[in-house]
Amino acid sequence: MTVNECAEWLRARDNFLIITHRRPDGDTIGSAAALAGALRAAGKMAHALRNGETTARYLPLIEPFHAPDSFEPGHIIAVDTASREMFPGAASGIERVDLSIDHHPSNTLYAEETLCDPSRASCGELVFDVISRLGEVSRDMAEALYIAVSTDTGCFSYDNTNAGAFLAASRLAELGADTAGINKRFFRSRSRSRVAIEGFIYSGLEFLFGGKAAVAVITNEMMKRSGADEDDIENIAALPVSIEGVLAGVTIREMKGGGCKVSVRSSPGLSSNEICARFGGGGHAAAAGFTSDEAPESLKPKIAAVLKELFER
Amino acid sequence: MTVNECAEWLRARDNFLIITHRRPDGDTIGSAAALAGALRAAGKMAHALRNGETTARYLPLIEPFHAPDSFEPGHIIAVDTASREMFPGAASGIERVDLSIDHHPSNTLYAEETLCDPSRASCGELVFDVISRLGEVSRDMAEALYIAVSTDTGCFSYDNTNAGAFLAASRLAELGADTAGINKRFFRSRSRSRVAIEGFIYSGLEFLFGGKAAVAVITNEMMKRSGADEDDIENIAALPVSIEGVLAGVTIREMKGGGCKVSVRSSPGLSSNEICARFGGGGHAAAAGFTSDEAPESLKPKIAAVLKELFER
Repeated sequence: MTVNECAEWLRARDNFLIITHRRPDGDTIGSAAALAGALRAAGKMAHALRNGETTARYLPLIEPFHAPDSFEPGHIIAVDTASREMFPGAASGIERVDLSIDHHPSNTLYAEETLCDPSRASCGELVFDVISRLGEVSRDMAEALYIAVSTDTGCFSYDNTNAGAFLAASRLAELGADTAGINKRFFRSRSRSRVAIEGFIYSGLEFLFGGKAAVAVITNEMMKRSGADEDDIENIAALPVSIEGVLAGVTIREMKGGGCKVSVRSSPGLSSNEICARFGGGGHAAAAGFTSDEAPESLKPKIAAVLKELFER
Repeated sequence: MTVNECAEWLRARDNFLIITHRRPDGDTIGSAAALAGALRAAGKMAHALRNGETTARYLPLIEPFHAPDSFEPGHIIAVDTASREMFPGAASGIERVDLSIDHHPSNTLYAEETLCDPSRASCGELVFDVISRLGEVSRDMAEALYIAVSTDTGCFSYDNTNAGAFLAASRLAELGADTAGINKRFFRSRSRSRVAIEGFIYSGLEFLFGGKAAVAVITNEMMKRSGADEDDIENIAALPVSIEGVLAGVTIREMKGGGCKVSVRSSPGLSSNEICARFGGGGHAAAAGFTSDEAPESLKPKIAAVLKELFER
């Protein structure tokens, strides 16, 4: 369906429940908050399904919209959710989804109606277009959508950032979104523990094959000494491959109970999935992982041997 | 003067020499390259003054426009340059500046004509408006301007990022600027030397006053061991203040000839300028600096004493 049709569809209905996806990010949460806010501003009943995996970072944004237990939805909408497999645990009982608003090319058309535009960098941009047709976009809605756009584009640095994403950001800034505050909170501040663990990682970083591969090790000792928790090491596997000339970045994390968890990130032309498959893991071409019972130091040469083979091919 | 007047002024003249500022950044270089390109496309002679401090990162952008030694300019234009003090060494013989295009509120009106709009996040946005009135903005010009806007806003993350900056980026992307390639090169990849020096800095980072201040020291030894050059430590002064809870970030860089250069970055409510003024330096509320003949270790307690005084106030 088109943006206009979607707006009309919403205008003609009431009592909405909005679903966010598993391991919710800024795009699904921001989209849900803005959509719920806009529907309420249009005089409708709209709630968001409480997603158990929502982290502290996003909870304040969506909490005012959480559905009360007693809510009986008339229509169910999923935002930024490509397939039923991406539904959170709380949505397991849901059979029929009435509308999916999404930007994933892999959307499985699981909903009765689908507004999906894969040319958009974020689902938030689509929601922005839809709610602009329902009424005035408030400052709160604009902030939720700015969080959606900015987090899904890595603060406008990822390859998906395009003219439309910039244009949406421009209009959201004009609508009063506190872009500086959001940028500071999401992209320009790091915890002391994060800085400490990065210091340890950088100091121990090993370059192989003339710098084409970089291997980082995170030991339990480093985690302890830095005081880092899971939030602090979010996305840390992206660090080694962000270094100039590095085609494969390997992050080996020692596990508390022994063994380790390995994350591989690679540049186009080298498959992370293929590397990890050799160790019984998998994932995508650009990002994959596996777990192992071995200690980091004994695993390293084995990973290096696989990398050598792929580089020589 | 207004953007329209500036375009008219340029249209009526020929033989331009464009000056970039000392320690040139992406905004001054990108602005100069785009302006020179647009003037040439409009059939005029336009060159950029060779700025000896241009780093390897920016040289390819401006090199095609460097003035031959024989060039006798008819009109001199400075871009992104607030005052004569910011002129590079090569401009020392220049008496009269005909036009200044700038976005610094501190522009001293040193030029005969000035187009200065401090509401712009970058000078590149002003140049964009001006050259849009001179003719078609080519892909090369758009890329130079995207480098200007994106570097001066820290890839749209700094507080100066506003609706206008986003709108300019949107239009530049539409004009064919390779935003993904530029983002990857400027914001999403780091040299091995950068990573190494960050590792040293993080390991030695000192927190004062319960984490309200962080002091980083960059010694000559660290520079040598990491192999870092000026490009590698660009904007490194922003690191300490990016840590959660830090209101004042101080970066002390040991100089090769002895003494050191200090950069201070601070959160609103605490003036970097005031801190640096105590040591004979200055700058803005959020960012300032000074130089000292002292060694980092002897300077540190003196800076701490000033910080203590300001925090207690």
